[in-house]
Amino acid sequence: MFKKILIVGCGLIGSSILRATIKKKISKKIYILERSKNHIKQIKRLGLNCEILKDSKKQIPSMDMIIICTHLGEYFKVLNKLEKYINKNTIVTDVGSAKEKIFKKTKTRIKKNINWISSHPIAGSEVSGPKFGNEKLFSDKWCVLIKEKSTKKTQLKILSKFWSKIGSNIVYMNLKEHDHIFSITSHIPHLVAYNMVKTAMNFEKKKKSNIVKFSAGGLRDFTRTAASNEIMWKDIFLYNHKNIIKGIDLFINNMRQIKKLINNKNEKQLIKIMQESKKIRKKIVSSKQDVNLPDFGRR
Amino acid sequence: MFKKILIVGCGLIGSSILRATIKKKISKKIYILERSKNHIKQIKRLGLNCEILKDSKKQIPSMDMIIICTHLGEYFKVLNKLEKYINKNTIVTDVGSAKEKIFKKTKTRIKKNINWISSHPIAGSEVSGPKFGNEKLFSDKWCVLIKEKSTKKTQLKILSKFWSKIGSNIVYMNLKEHDHIFSITSHIPHLVAYNMVKTAMNFEKKKKSNIVKFSAGGLRDFTRTAASNEIMWKDIFLYNHKNIIKGIDLFINNMRQIKKLINNKNEKQLIKIMQESKKIRKKIVSSKQDVNLPDFGRR
Repeated sequence: MFKKILIVGCGLIGSSILRATIKKKISKKIYILERSKNHIKQIKRLGLNCEILKDSKKQIPSMDMIIICTHLGEYFKVLNKLEKYINKNTIVTDVGSAKEKIFKKTKTRIKKNINWISSHPIAGSEVSGPKFGNEKLFSDKWCVLIKEKSTKKTQLKILSKFWSKIGSNIVYMNLKEHDHIFSITSHIPHLVAYNMVKTAMNFEKKKKSNIVKFSAGGLRDFTRTAASNEIMWKDIFLYNHKNIIKGIDLFINNMRQIKKLINNKNEKQLIKIMQESKKIRKKIVSSKQDVNLPDFGRR
Repeated sequence: MFKKILIVGCGLIGSSILRATIKKKISKKIYILERSKNHIKQIKRLGLNCEILKDSKKQIPSMDMIIICTHLGEYFKVLNKLEKYINKNTIVTDVGSAKEKIFKKTKTRIKKNINWISSHPIAGSEVSGPKFGNEKLFSDKWCVLIKEKSTKKTQLKILSKFWSKIGSNIVYMNLKEHDHIFSITSHIPHLVAYNMVKTAMNFEKKKKSNIVKFSAGGLRDFTRTAASNEIMWKDIFLYNHKNIIKGIDLFINNMRQIKKLINNKNEKQLIKIMQESKKIRKKIVSSKQDVNLPDFGRR
């Protein structure tokens, strides 16, 4: 399908794309740009078939596709290094979780007529680094492709085929729509999880050991989400800032309302809120967005 | 060990105690008081060896131990029905998640000199009903026993042995300490999860299907917790009211602080908060309070 693919940043997501691309024989050659020595060591140890590029002056042919898998905050710097690998047919994509602001910010940096089409595979984990990568990470997961008026159809089709081939189900959104939806299904949940753990630490100032010891009552689920990569999430919070602030305000208002219901002993309304949220869980399980096992099947 | 044990309320927890008690041959006979016809049908279908009591006038001998496994809000009503099963040696316990207020409220209802020692096994799930019960539910889990000045040592020792025998590790707390710790490790996390799902529904008013479809980005974890039994949780919120209100206020203040950090683009502080919460996760995993697998080992 491709002759040369370049993956920029080879952590959990980048290395999973690398593995899946090797497995599905999608490209004759796969190049990697990675600045972490630790990651490079892991990739070599895993024996994944790819060429790790150094910042040398040696002539490198331009790529058929470039997939940026770094943190959002590094795009700016990374784009400077990529020009030499790009020709008019190269498809440039990324896997970032926030879209609109970064698109506007980088647009000026990118040569005109570049085929930049953003991707967002809804897959990941709280762990980081190539050793946790998995060739099946994208299997049966959604991959959002950003489609704006300016998006070229031929390139969109090629990119769509690529993600399908490594297992994803494709869905198209524009920049605004993407950032709105994922602020509430992903960004605010992460922010809330971090805030929950912070609050627990404040509440139990004297004995943090209690938080650990008795976390199985509910808190431990939050700590998993709140163990996600802090650089990645700092960037997401800043790059989807507007939607996230709106979400925070709504969350706080709702929490105040629940507080009032508790203070007023309004059993009926409390039950109603909880019954509503139970329905969503059922739909998530029946539409196979989560495992159909109590407690995530955890033992 | 016992001749007669009575389990009052045979849902997830009650039926798990039933199974474990049968398995470990702890009592010659086990009686069940259960008002749900559906639960009774399930218990019979499961063939669990016990006698289901009816509210008849037939003489029933007093019990060695009574374990109340109903919702907190039913204790008052239940206690009226229990007098005939209690003598001066009977140990009465419960498995409720909130302690101080319910203890004060029911104290006046209970005959003097009754051996009431409260228990709280830190085990459970988002599912309800006897069919989800599990004889190993308490294995290697904490069980809190409430120890106040008035607690009789002999009976506390017997109760402690009972929980140990079905697999629990015992820890002693007083009423206040219990309600403080579990407000933050269990009650607030549940309230926050319910509030997160409610907020997501508000945010995506028009297209609730998006919440379901793209929940794998983080929200789905919250929906599991927020699928817990609404009657049970309504009671917990009302019976640990003071600690929970304190927790809500602290949570909101912290969330406002994070909002400010985002608005001010304070990357350094945001990263610091997230790094701190990552440490707690590591401790939870290393002290075996959660599985040591990315994504809870979910596939």
